[in-house]
Amino acid sequence: MGDVQNVKFCQWCGGSTKPGIPEGEERFRAICTSCGKIAYQNPKMVVGCLIEHDNKVLLCKRNIEPSYGLWTLPAGYLEMGESAREGAIRETREEANAEVEVISPFAQLDIPLIGQTYIIFLARLKNPHFSPGPESSDCQLFPLEEIPFNSLSFSSMVVTLSLYVEDKKAGGKPKFHYGTINKRPGTSASDIHAYTLDHHMQS
Amino acid sequence: MGDVQNVKFCQWCGGSTKPGIPEGEERFRAICTSCGKIAYQNPKMVVGCLIEHDNKVLLCKRNIEPSYGLWTLPAGYLEMGESAREGAIRETREEANAEVEVISPFAQLDIPLIGQTYIIFLARLKNPHFSPGPESSDCQLFPLEEIPFNSLSFSSMVVTLSLYVEDKKAGGKPKFHYGTINKRPGTSASDIHAYTLDHHMQS
Repeated sequence: MGDVQNVKFCQWCGGSTKPGIPEGEERFRAICTSCGKIAYQNPKMVVGCLIEHDNKVLLCKRNIEPSYGLWTLPAGYLEMGESAREGAIRETREEANAEVEVISPFAQLDIPLIGQTYIIFLARLKNPHFSPGPESSDCQLFPLEEIPFNSLSFSSMVVTLSLYVEDKKAGGKPKFHYGTINKRPGTSASDIHAYTLDHHMQS
Repeated sequence: MGDVQNVKFCQWCGGSTKPGIPEGEERFRAICTSCGKIAYQNPKMVVGCLIEHDNKVLLCKRNIEPSYGLWTLPAGYLEMGESAREGAIRETREEANAEVEVISPFAQLDIPLIGQTYIIFLARLKNPHFSPGPESSDCQLFPLEEIPFNSLSFSSMVVTLSLYVEDKKAGGKPKFHYGTINKRPGTSASDIHAYTLDHHMQS
């Protein structure tokens, strides 16, 4: 019910909402007491790029909260009207002032606890130029053995980069990975290593 | 601006919203004129299963609009608190009364025009039982050469099943496919074959 209670008023008519289970459904929704419309809430996609250049990967140091000062792949919420591929290219332009070509899909990582799904593509730089955008304080290329695994911003980044390093060590082409990131019960939200990767499948 | 104009009132305080570009952003958002909060709108994920059984695939005949009476894979909106895999299993249970085991991710198909991303998994029946749920009028197993390509419900189903048939004909394991479905300009929304599959990549 947590998500339902976030919607107190109807976006269409401004009436108050009340939690209820619509006919033929099984879940609580915020239903308008005035016009009867239902406010559906659904998980959001975060799209980003894992950029390979000279056997290094491009990371951005976050200049914004949450996880200020920690390292991330360029990534952000998918916007209406764009594809995941276009969104990942846009986020890379915004956060790293870099123009990239997307090579292949690399990972889908669901985080049910916070209603997010990460969609990460492998990409390459179209030219060797990059620099921090407004949301970054630094951008750097890291050799695989120097990826700052203890200073990453989110569990999703730990998982993505770990899978990538494993794929590269195994040789051959990186695979496509699907998995669910679940926080280990009783651990702090800021402990990015306190997760399990469940139902990991690869193609 | 179309999406922004759908949000006329603030979900948190009930105040009227006004379209505007928040500081540091580039897109129009619905901003509350009373409390200042921003209503972000993002694409939604549709999750489903492509179920293989005895060299056939399971399709459901839609008992609801849109595309009433046409055939579809069991699929529906991902809900808060579940993974894409869990959502695909749930939709299959709801629409085909079938219990499935997910085998691998098969396709991500973005449809930017309508703000949807399809996430389709390959799956197998845990037991040979299935029957139409409330949203279906029929469920049937179709051999690949008998898939009703002219009576499918959506372009996303045409693309998913076409890619699957191609993979099977090529032999070996089905791949993971990413692509963007764009409607061909000037064609009717109901013409499910009037699309282009752009930026198709596979892993």
